[in-house]
Amino acid sequence: MPPIISIVGKSDSGKTTLLEKLIAEIKNRGYRVGTIKHDTHGFDIDREGKDTWRHKKAGASTVAISSPTKVAVIKDIKQEETLDTIAAAYLQDVDIVFAEGYKRGNKPKVEVFRKEVHQELLCTEDDNLIAVASNQHFDLKVPYFDINDVKGLADLIQNKFLKTKPSPSVSLILDGTYAPLKPFIQEMFINTLTGMVAALKGGKGAQSIQISITLPRE
Amino acid sequence: MPPIISIVGKSDSGKTTLLEKLIAEIKNRGYRVGTIKHDTHGFDIDREGKDTWRHKKAGASTVAISSPTKVAVIKDIKQEETLDTIAAAYLQDVDIVFAEGYKRGNKPKVEVFRKEVHQELLCTEDDNLIAVASNQHFDLKVPYFDINDVKGLADLIQNKFLKTKPSPSVSLILDGTYAPLKPFIQEMFINTLTGMVAALKGGKGAQSIQISITLPRE
Repeated sequence: MPPIISIVGKSDSGKTTLLEKLIAEIKNRGYRVGTIKHDTHGFDIDREGKDTWRHKKAGASTVAISSPTKVAVIKDIKQEETLDTIAAAYLQDVDIVFAEGYKRGNKPKVEVFRKEVHQELLCTEDDNLIAVASNQHFDLKVPYFDINDVKGLADLIQNKFLKTKPSPSVSLILDGTYAPLKPFIQEMFINTLTGMVAALKGGKGAQSIQISITLPRE
Repeated sequence: MPPIISIVGKSDSGKTTLLEKLIAEIKNRGYRVGTIKHDTHGFDIDREGKDTWRHKKAGASTVAISSPTKVAVIKDIKQEETLDTIAAAYLQDVDIVFAEGYKRGNKPKVEVFRKEVHQELLCTEDDNLIAVASNQHFDLKVPYFDINDVKGLADLIQNKFLKTKPSPSVSLILDGTYAPLKPFIQEMFINTLTGMVAALKGGKGAQSIQISITLPRE
């Protein structure tokens, strides 16, 4: 699974603006970037009157739209999914995931701060804080970057999360929830499944394997 | 994998209108419905200025947004995905999938026809045609329904695709493309993986198992 880094900050601190620059910078360095936006209230992503919007309104629990270059999916869920579950289900094919607004999550965090709108940092005491980007200098244990020093922040992220040689990885989702696996169990799944798949026609050398099993309700 | 039925018809024949009624009718009968819309030109599903829209525009190849009740994903793809690939990746948790606009696909099809806008059926000779819904009577080998007889059409679909007792199913996606499996291979995957998962903490009795393996590029 790709590394996940949360961009956090109080409201109006400039999270999305910084993230836009960071996405462009990391992409320019040759990496595939994915994002996960946290929305606590519910969101409207589709446009009223479009076919997918009409399907959803008529009662479809999942709607998808597919074109030669893009695919989009809107899905009802029973309970909020964690970053791990979302990344495992939808973001396996990127090198790094930036999450926006998961301030209570347990992922490495970059806090964005602007002195014009807030007095204090959100997460000074957070063990997962890896950097602060701000227009006001802070004397902290973690690295500090000027809010416009996107290259400096990208260097830190690249060195910390993208320089290690990627190794085979496996993720498991059980009944819609990400299930962490111990390293030797991961290895067992990887070896068993790559072996089974390699025996199939066209399966040798596959770099991404996704298997879904559905067992009927009793 | 859930059964997939394509709703086809020439332009302006009323596909989406019929599909809205069909979704509501099948949902009312207690089934979970998913849809896949085919868009040959490319689509804009997000709203300009929204955070996800800004992430995508900045260069993210996949953007997701998550709330307590819904999740949405927009993903760049290298080549158009088939109905099987999309259903296997995103629609495992519904009972039936209706596709709109895949007239060249190999799925069972319902053609929608309105005499005001067209002269001839699109797929009289198509072996996968299972029904025609129209405001003009046709004498065909396949069942004919009045365009407003949604209950009749839903009965046909329910009897043909939803009455059989669901059995354990497995789907495999290799490097982004659905890979069909012969029945005894399916059984091997189901037995091996449900066995492995049942041995994990919390894995016993899981009804949906999704495993993703990513092997690094050489």
